[in-house]
This record gives sequence, C-alpha cells and structure tokens, in this order.
Amino acid sequence: MQEIIVKIACPDEKGLVHKITGVFYHNQHNVISNQEFVEPDTNIFFMRSVIQGDVDTQRILNGLTGILPQQAQITLSVKQKKNIVILATKEHHCLSELLIRHHFGELNANICAVIGNHDHLAELVNRFGIPFYHISAEGISREEHEQLMHEKINNFQPEYIVLAKYMRILTPWLVEQYPDQIINIHHSFLPAFIGANPYKQAYERGVKIIGATAHFVNNHLDEGPIIRQEVMHVDHTQSWQEMAQAGRDVEKLVLAKALKLVFNDNIFVIGNKTVIFE
Amino acid sequence: MQEIIVKIACPDEKGLVHKITGVFYHNQHNVISNQEFVEPDTNIFFMRSVIQGDVDTQRILNGLTGILPQQAQITLSVKQKKNIVILATKEHHCLSELLIRHHFGELNANICAVIGNHDHLAELVNRFGIPFYHISAEGISREEHEQLMHEKINNFQPEYIVLAKYMRILTPWLVEQYPDQIINIHHSFLPAFIGANPYKQAYERGVKIIGATAHFVNNHLDEGPIIRQEVMHVDHTQSWQEMAQAGRDVEKLVLAKALKLVFNDNIFVIGNKTVIFE
Amino acid sequence: MQEIIVKIACPDEKGLVHKITGVFYHNQHNVISNQEFVEPDTNIFFMRSVIQGDVDTQRILNGLTGILPQQAQITLSVKQKKNIVILATKEHHCLSELLIRHHFGELNANICAVIGNHDHLAELVNRFGIPFYHISAEGISREEHEQLMHEKINNFQPEYIVLAKYMRILTPWLVEQYPDQIINIHHSFLPAFIGANPYKQAYERGVKIIGATAHFVNNHLDEGPIIRQEVMHVDHTQSWQEMAQAGRDVEKLVLAKALKLVFNDNIFVIGNKTVIFE
Amino acid sequence: MQEIIVKIACPDEKGLVHKITGVFYHNQHNVISNQEFVEPDTNIFFMRSVIQGDVDTQRILNGLTGILPQQAQITLSVKQKKNIVILATKEHHCLSELLIRHHFGELNANICAVIGNHDHLAELVNRFGIPFYHISAEGISREEHEQLMHEKINNFQPEYIVLAKYMRILTPWLVEQYPDQIINIHHSFLPAFIGANPYKQAYERGVKIIGATAHFVNNHLDEGPIIRQEVMHVDHTQSWQEMAQAGRDVEKLVLAKALKLVFNDNIFVIGNKTVIFE
Repeated sequence: MQEIIVKIACPDEKGLVHKITGVFYHNQHNVISNQEFVEPDTNIFFMRSVIQGDVDTQRILNGLTGILPQQAQITLSVKQKKNIVILATKEHHCLSELLIRHHFGELNANICAVIGNHDHLAELVNRFGIPFYHISAEGISREEHEQLMHEKINNFQPEYIVLAKYMRILTPWLVEQYPDQIINIHHSFLPAFIGANPYKQAYERGVKIIGATAHFVNNHLDEGPIIRQEVMHVDHTQSWQEMAQAGRDVEKLVLAKALKLVFNDNIFVIGNKTVIFE
Repeated sequence: MQEIIVKIACPDEKGLVHKITGVFYHNQHNVISNQEFVEPDTNIFFMRSVIQGDVDTQRILNGLTGILPQQAQITLSVKQKKNIVILATKEHHCLSELLIRHHFGELNANICAVIGNHDHLAELVNRFGIPFYHISAEGISREEHEQLMHEKINNFQPEYIVLAKYMRILTPWLVEQYPDQIINIHHSFLPAFIGANPYKQAYERGVKIIGATAHFVNNHLDEGPIIRQEVMHVDHTQSWQEMAQAGRDVEKLVLAKALKLVFNDNIFVIGNKTVIFE
Repeated sequence: MQEIIVKIACPDEKGLVHKITGVFYHNQHNVISNQEFVEPDTNIFFMRSVIQGDVDTQRILNGLTGILPQQAQITLSVKQKKNIVILATKEHHCLSELLIRHHFGELNANICAVIGNHDHLAELVNRFGIPFYHISAEGISREEHEQLMHEKINNFQPEYIVLAKYMRILTPWLVEQYPDQIINIHHSFLPAFIGANPYKQAYERGVKIIGATAHFVNNHLDEGPIIRQEVMHVDHTQSWQEMAQAGRDVEKLVLAKALKLVFNDNIFVIGNKTVIFE
Repeated sequence: MQEIIVKIACPDEKGLVHKITGVFYHNQHNVISNQEFVEPDTNIFFMRSVIQGDVDTQRILNGLTGILPQQAQITLSVKQKKNIVILATKEHHCLSELLIRHHFGELNANICAVIGNHDHLAELVNRFGIPFYHISAEGISREEHEQLMHEKINNFQPEYIVLAKYMRILTPWLVEQYPDQIINIHHSFLPAFIGANPYKQAYERGVKIIGATAHFVNNHLDEGPIIRQEVMHVDHTQSWQEMAQAGRDVEKLVLAKALKLVFNDNIFVIGNKTVIFE
C-alpha cells in the first residue's frame, strides 16, 4: 500500500498532535508512525508522520492547513527514490559505497550521474553503467568551472547533490542554488580540524580519536547542519597516512547512513542544526 | 509544575493517538512529550506521554478508560523518586556507583536499605548513612535465607529491588513476589556466557569483546527482559581477572543507565522483551 | 626496500628477545618493529618482527634455529599479496566490499576466483573482471558438491579461502584440507546465536546490541579462533529484517579488518584462540 | 617478586633492543614485557620493559648507560603507588570516582589531600577520611591564590596533581613547577570546544557526538599532550544541561583510565604528544 510522509514545522501550541492526528483519523488513514519534538530555543513544533492508505494528498494538505497556524510548513511526499547527482574527485571509497548500494537497490535513490573534476573514477563508474562526466577545472576560472558544473547538474534536475569526497570548495553562488540539498562528507570530527588535510592536523595534535562528519553544505566552510558523526580510536603508532586510510571506512559508512536519513525524509533543518526522527 | 507520566498498552486500532491526546487537550494539559510504538508480532500499541499542569489524575484515567479498548493497561504516575532496596555480596563497584549518585541526588530513587549476604560492604554503606543489613546464608537452607531476605525487604515496601552484583540465584518463589520489579546486572553480553564466571568463559573462548547486561529478573537464569547492554574490546594480553577488572566499569554504568530508565518510567515489559521510550 | 616478516612460537625461556634480535643485529638488518607475548596458560612465547634490508632468509632461518628451542616454529615471509579464493551464496555486501578493495589494490590479496553455490553474484563479479564459477549443490550429495568445490579451489592453490556469507556448512573433510586457512564471517556476536538466522534469534531474545564475528573455521560450528568482533546498538523498533540489513555494514567491515590482519601475517593461532599483533 | 619498570628514550640506532635486553639477560632478570616504538618525525626510540627478580637498580642503570647513546633518558621505577594531590571545585563526579577507587585500593595512588577553591566537596572527602583543604580565591589576587595553593601542594611532595574538574586556569608559573605532572580532564573532545562551557558550545553547533579528554597540562589552554579520549552520541532532544549530565559518565571514566596509565608508568611525553604502551 502507498505510504505518505507528512512533515510539519510550525510554532508550538496546545493540541497540535490531537488536531493533526484528527485529520488523518477522519480521512480513514492508518498512521504507521508519528514523531514530534518542540525545539526549546525557538518553540517550534516538528512532527513527522507516516500514513498509509488511498491518500488524497490535496485533501490532507487542506485539512492540515485548516487546523495549523498560518506560518506552518507542511510537506507531503510519497515514499519513493530520490534523484541525485554525485560529485567526486580522485578518492573512490565513498563513491564505491554508493555505487554498490545503488546497484543492489539499497540506496533509496537514483544516481543520475557522477561528475568528476578529475577523470580518475570514470572507469569505476562505467563498470556500473552510470554516466560519468569529467569537467576539469584546469585552465579556467573558478566561476567558469562552476558554471559548467551547474549546467551539467541541472540537466538532471536532482533533488540532492552528494559530495563524495569532492575536494573543491563550492562558491556561495552554487551553494545558494541548492539550499539544504547538498550533502558533504568531511573527514574529521567537526568542528575539530576544519579545512584541508584534517588527518594531518589530527596527527600533529596527537589526538586519540579521529572521525567523520556528514553535513548539509551552507556558505560557511565545513559549518553546515550536521547529520551524522562517527569516530574511531587511533594511537601513536599510526602515521597520518595510516589514519587517513583507516578513516575511510568511517567516512563511507557515515555518508551512507546520513544519506539514508536524507532520502527517507527523516530530517528537518533548523538554522545550523538538524532535527532527525529515526 | 507537576508532571504526570501516562503509560498505555492496549490492542492497536485506528485513531488511538488522536483520541488519547484529545483527553489531554480537552483537560487543558500541556503535553511535554509523546512516544508510541506498535509491536508487530502482537499488534499491541504502547504509548508514553508526559503531561503538565494541575492534573486531576482520576479525571484523566476516566477519560482514557472511556476511549480505550477494554483490555487497556493505563498507569499514571507522578514524577517522583522510587523507593528501592539494594542487594549485594562482596564486590563494591556497582553499589558504590549507586551510593554516590544517591548521595548527590542523581539516582531518582531513595535507597531504603542495602542487604548483603556477606558483611564486606557494610563499612562503605555506613559511610553514606544508609542502613546495611547482613543476612548470612551460612548454616541455613536456601529457603530459610530467602524467607529472611523477604521479611527484611518487605519492611521497606520498595518499588524496585536492585541486584548490585548479588551473587546468589533467587528462588522462583522470591522472584514471583516482585514481578518486573527486580533488576540485575549480569557481567556478560547476554545471551553469551550465562551462569557462573562469564569473564573466565569469555577468556577461554577467546572473544575480542566483553560486555554487561542489565535486565529484569524472571525465573529463567539470566534470561529476563533486557534493558541495556554495553561492550568493550579486549585482546589476548588480558587474563580473565584483568577482563573482570576492566569489565567493572562497563557493569556499573550499564546498571546506572538501566536504572535511570526504570526509575523514570521509560520501560514497558512485553513477554521477554522491553519497549523503551528514551 | 624488501621487508621480511619473522614469526616465532616456542616454549618461553630467559633471553629469547635478546637472542632473536641478536640474529637480526649481527646480520645487519634494520628491525622495523618487534612484538612479543607469552601465553600464560601454556607458557608459549610468540614473537613477530619485521626486518628490512637485503635479507638472506636461509641465513636468518639458520641463525634462529641455532638459538631457539628445538620445538620452535619459525616462519619468514616476504611482505606480498596472498592468493585467495572467495566463496559466496546470494548476499553481496561482503563480497562487494572485497571486490572494491581488490579493484583499488587495497586488499593485500589477489582474488583468483569467486565460487558461488548460486549464480546470483556472477553479474557483480564479472563487472570487476574476476572469474566466477557456479557450482550448484542441487541434485547432488553434500560430498559430491564439496568434491567439486575442492577441485575448483585447488586449481588456484590459494593461501586463504574466504567465506563471504557462504551459507553452507563445510564438511569436516574440506575444513581439514585447509587448516587455519579458511576465514568466515558469522552474523552474530559469537558465542551468542550460533547457527541459523542469528538476527531472528537476537530479535526474539530482545537484545539491545547485535554484532558480527570473523573467525578461522574449524570443525565445530561457529567455534573457530575468533579474529575480530564488532557490535552495534539496536532497539525495540527494529524488526529482525531491519537488524539484518543494518548488521551488514558491521559484517563487511569486520571481515575486511580481519582479512587485513590475516593477509598481513599479524596472527598466531593457538588452540581455539588467536594472538594478534596489530 | 619485585617488579621494576625501565623506561628508555634515545635517538634510534641499530641493535638497541638486542643491547638493552642483553643487559637484562646478563643480569639474570626475567623480562615480563617489552614494548618499543620509533617516532618517525624525530627518529627517537622509546622502550618500556618490566623486569622481575632481585634487581640491583644501580647495576642495571650502569649497564644501560654503557650501551646507550649519551643523550639517552633512562628511568627505573619500582612498581608502587604514586603520591597525588587532587584539586577540585564544585562538581563531584570525577572526585567521587577517584575517592571510591582509592578507598578500595584500585587507584594505584595515595591521595594525600584534596584541595578545593570552594568547600562544596569537603563533606564527601571527609566521609572517606581524606584531608580536605579549602583555599578560597575570594578577595585575593590570582597570584596570591596560586601561592597558597602551591604551598599547600608542596607540603605533600606529590608525584602527580590531578585536576578533577578544577574550574580555574592555572598560571604559567604554577604549571612550570610541575612539568608533565599535572593531569586535567576537559569536558570536550579536544581540540573541539576549547575553553568555557564546551557542552553549550557543542549544543549550539548541533554536533551528534560529545566527548571528554584527559591530558597533561602545559601553558597553552586545553592544549597539553592528550592521554585518552572517549565520546558518546547525542541528539537534538538533549539540552546542553542534559548533555553535560550525560557527559559526566564519560569524563570520570576517561580520567580514571588516563590516571591508570600515568600511575603505571605507561606514558612517554614527546613534545605535545604522548607515546602510550598499554
């Protein structure tokens, strides 16, 4: 049976759950799950429901609009695969993980294309029958490169763009084209070790734990809303290159788990934070 | 303001959340949080709500009874400290953890008494001004010992009994006096290594991870509903005595975290499992 | 420069490290690392050294034989890729992980062939240009099937055989052909949930943590020397199918990490245990 | 039998292990364990050995001096409890953990005294029969306060000073009195969230993992050599106060485990890093 995900964000007030579930109940829908949260700093109410049945989405939307505060943000989405474009550079491990999951129908997304600023990964991508586009940044300006990227991406009208170890910093202009739609994997436990070569930074600081962070991209370097983080122990015997190698396993799983949450509509973004209903 | 925890378990049917939150809404109560779950094997609906305000509990109970299926189990409890009795033997670490938390008001419980089948821990307990009772099992039958334990425990009418490394197996008779009220910490990752000296068993099996399990006690050895489990890595360099020593840190934290859930009314028991709303 | 791994196991006695390192020193070899351990139950001394230089292995072997007890087991191996054969059935995740690592030269092994008792994974394996052999067990006896498997495996003279979710139990006869050379990934935290469908067993027991175990295969079901274990938290909301799905990420990484240790000659097997120098 | 811990740090050269173990062997000492490491950036060789027997320490020292490079740092220490002084402020959890372990002989240290800049913890400390000194910073200058602290500490000639949630920043002068002898627990996963109220910083950044760091104190705020770090997962439902409460369990265990390494002579400090032989 069809499943619809309903996401609501609005100022909190008494009786919201009762009223919202009333709309579902009076339309004869099974509610598979409800989750709600009131963010204490802003007093915003968040709710995510999964409803089942022969859903008339316009009718549900009208019903909800009628009982919710005027500023309420309401989205209804059918549970289905998202269209995505992946950007990559030279490292394969995150891309490989996504290609394999996609190949076996485990990604909850259609990979429309992979775009690389280098061509190192073309061979891999082609093995899986996915189009690979090489858009080199050599010899052209940053703006020209991003214009080319933008055009290529837009051909596919993706719902999300995944930076799978894409080693260039996006310009503010490109980021603004895709608000809360770009997901990055950063190879450190943010906010520690922002910027280049975090494993080297970690090694030099002598930390005993390293990590990875999946986050939405905004226009502050490595500072968007965090989706998921994981860590692993290291010790003095490991060079930073060995840390980097070991860290790849963390990176690829953190990214895959974050994308599962994104593609399953489990996440609300509020300011620089995420509310995640797992 | 007063907070009331409402726990409901009943056969699932459409509209339950709408109807239940309706009772709260029409009585003008703020709902701090709701959590619900439908157990798929049994189709039982579980809900835990925290409501705030000048709550007339009888009125709420009547309201809920009116709209819920007849078999519904409904409990309303004011958020307050539980009365508990702790049983211990010779090892101090779990007891110490609970005494310290209790001393600083962090346990969400009143320790009415500690009862030991040995007197090793009397000195520690007395330092914290808690009554300690030594009920030796020497020279008397198992049944006589438990009869004495039972009498002493009953003096305090505790809501929960905590086995903080109490190294005797309770008889079925005693367990039946306190259904879902006895919590034990077992020093293995159950169901691995049931029974005596699990660290020795773990060492001999050559495992690379050891753990601890907090669970409700029923009449199958080390087999009650599991509340919480944690693990730690070990390697070939550790003797079983060293594993036991290292494992104590896991044991005491697992027990403390499990008790937090129990004393905060976060747990439903269904058959041999727990549903936990954290 | 060439690196040689020296592994020694012998009854412990005074001065072993001094004498062994003396052989290296007097032959002018750099010692990159030494690790040693005395197993207390058996009093066996284990040492693993990595030496560098223009190594005359026969000369080193003679030198060591001259100063070690007669029963000493000494192996010298040049750091190089191992030849392996992988057995699989229908599930792809462990195999995918190994194929990707192999494709990018990260496995420290040559995958000579993949053999499946079903043909589900042929398509995947072919994408990476690795030979896949389908040896069905349909309509033939267990012994006949293993005979065919054995013949095929032996064509490649592999140093190790990896069971990447191979869902058949090997006969004692086949296991004996490859002592300490077969590595299996079991989808539970052994010794919990031995045998079939451990995720279902875990679900029914209501555990809060599930795991995976990589181990050498011997002739006791799921009972060989454990190499590596990892776990993940689960809760009441997950069906056993969801646990199985989530558990795959643990399984594939545990297997990959165990194989890294195996292929890098980091492991000694002693009885039913492993001594691992990481 | 007496156990002696030998720690050596010197420029690396061929044959060091052979020569060092030769000194032990020719003096008829059992070697319980050896661990060594060459730091690649500085090419410094570190070795820690535990030797047993009727050890003539001067003879061993002379033997080692004779065969090691001139700049070698050699320390021999009998395995025995260290004398320590603990500084605290108002929070009890780290202090409680140390007092309990000390009370049961598990700390490998003698707590000579606890000094607080507030008197909140006097009652607790007195329960364990340990002297508590209240040295208020009220109404006096920072320098005067530290002078008083210094005098009090020096009465006890401690080998280590433990900052168990001591919430004042030590002056460079005081830090210099005790090089590599002061251990602090910082309530974040350093280098993230240096300085005041790291849990609030973590909450505001929306991280999904928080942690704690035990480190030696030097004259850069929260920047000394890291001994141990641990983390825990958090989510959007937790306020920073709840994060702080949950984080205390991590803090106290990280500190306890770090101190075990320190008091057991497992650590070398090199620049801003630690080499730890566990």
